[in-house]
Amino acid sequence: MTQIYDRVALIGLGLIASSMAHGMRRAGLAGEIVGTARSAETRDTAREIGLCDRICDTVAEAVKDADLVVLCVPVGAMDVVAREIAPALKAGATVTDVGSVKRAVIEAVQPHLPDNVHFVPSHPVAGTEHSGPRSGFAELFEERWFLIVPVEGAEPEAVDRIEALWKGIGAKTARMDADHHDLVLAVTSHAPHLIAYTMVGVADDLSRVTDSEVINYSAAGFRDFTRIAASDPTMWRDVFLNNKEATLEILGRFTEELFVLQRAIREGNGEQLHDYFTRTRSIRRSIIEAGQDTAAANFGRTPTDPK
Amino acid sequence: MTQIYDRVALIGLGLIASSMAHGMRRAGLAGEIVGTARSAETRDTAREIGLCDRICDTVAEAVKDADLVVLCVPVGAMDVVAREIAPALKAGATVTDVGSVKRAVIEAVQPHLPDNVHFVPSHPVAGTEHSGPRSGFAELFEERWFLIVPVEGAEPEAVDRIEALWKGIGAKTARMDADHHDLVLAVTSHAPHLIAYTMVGVADDLSRVTDSEVINYSAAGFRDFTRIAASDPTMWRDVFLNNKEATLEILGRFTEELFVLQRAIREGNGEQLHDYFTRTRSIRRSIIEAGQDTAAANFGRTPTDPK
Repeated sequence: MTQIYDRVALIGLGLIASSMAHGMRRAGLAGEIVGTARSAETRDTAREIGLCDRICDTVAEAVKDADLVVLCVPVGAMDVVAREIAPALKAGATVTDVGSVKRAVIEAVQPHLPDNVHFVPSHPVAGTEHSGPRSGFAELFEERWFLIVPVEGAEPEAVDRIEALWKGIGAKTARMDADHHDLVLAVTSHAPHLIAYTMVGVADDLSRVTDSEVINYSAAGFRDFTRIAASDPTMWRDVFLNNKEATLEILGRFTEELFVLQRAIREGNGEQLHDYFTRTRSIRRSIIEAGQDTAAANFGRTPTDPK
Repeated sequence: MTQIYDRVALIGLGLIASSMAHGMRRAGLAGEIVGTARSAETRDTAREIGLCDRICDTVAEAVKDADLVVLCVPVGAMDVVAREIAPALKAGATVTDVGSVKRAVIEAVQPHLPDNVHFVPSHPVAGTEHSGPRSGFAELFEERWFLIVPVEGAEPEAVDRIEALWKGIGAKTARMDADHHDLVLAVTSHAPHLIAYTMVGVADDLSRVTDSEVINYSAAGFRDFTRIAASDPTMWRDVFLNNKEATLEILGRFTEELFVLQRAIREGNGEQLHDYFTRTRSIRRSIIEAGQDTAAANFGRTPTDPK
């Protein structure tokens, strides 16, 4: 594949940034990949595993002469990082981010950027429950969606170029408006995460009563919640604080619906429950047909290989 | 391995029964495996794939001379099936079931059984989102728990013998009281299933607004809910109707906790959210250490193989 940017700077070296580094390198999309992270430990790990061509100790050093700067920090840190990079950015550079919310990131970042750089917010709809520089892998974005949320007046060429980069690491791309993005993600990601965190928290409270039973018998459904609830706490705190309204709206609908089903249970209305469960089953099929999950039972987990 | 029963009769031929048939056959645990199912289509499929040694058209025929009868029907059908098998049971036979709730099953089955048979309720804490006679596989129970819930006055030898069978198909076993079982499973299975069904239902309502976006961007957490919510509707209707109190109690706690977290979001209390998410993360680790799930990211789903 052809090189798309001469120099790419990754700010923050967690799951997304490290997967990008592997993906860009595999496809030869960047002349040089530079990285930095706030913690010295993370930078040391990145150096040790040779994650980037060069690891810098400061943000200003990392973005110097970069053609593309990718902000891979928690949403709550975007404002501070934007202030730090602004004076060091090269004229004509593109800045993007990979935050899971877009309206709040645009408001946090855009005011600080000089007029001579392009800001093209992005969001890769992909992830795992692992975090840190060792957790990345080149295949993370394959067949997953990258949502591009161009700000008003964005230069079409800059948007096309970053879209080519995301396609180059295997992703599909779509463009949408920031508010619409935040609502869709509240449904597909933010509300499900809060619900999973909550259910796991409830089980944890109860496990003091039931010892390790909750752990041992988790294969009955609960373990799938724990995977989601094992995601990075800082990232998720920031997501909820920065997509407050949409998340609360979806949670409101969820609670309303849950109460309806609870009442059906209390009243013994089997027909209502059966109809509901039949409807939800078909959604699974659509997701498999859309290539967004495997049809293999239990996600293809090998029962004999628990580690 | 040594044969444990001369003849085993499987009543109902879904995921659990078909996995048992494969597991018993692989380990040579039964002299003859006989099966039956209510629907002619299921019986035909079972015959076609050679699931059992013999498929009978009636329940009475299937249980005749069987040393072990396994009721693998939805919880709501246990009462009817118990009445049907009762007159045909061999003296000294053992009857077990694989229902996900135990108090209600004991109440539905025990009164109908003659005094000269042993009733040893069981519950395999294992499953997938697939159902029917083709969905079974011998490895389903490996390293998973079989909970044995002996009724009062159960003959120790009959209990030991069925425990040996479950161990023979690869499972771990534990014994517990029916009410305790129903409470633990409400936490690890019943409440999580209702929550997953609810969230998928909410997304389905909204997807009429957002077209296929909910499907396309499901990789952000939602798809794990859809797996759970794709489980058999009849089985789950019966679980909720028959473990009403425990499920409603856990859902009550869940809603209470969800409201606390919703308020933290509304008030912007990041510390509370971060603390909560940090606590839930450690539970995932315990489940992996207990051998009840894989540590591989995203359950080891292969991103390049979506089908």
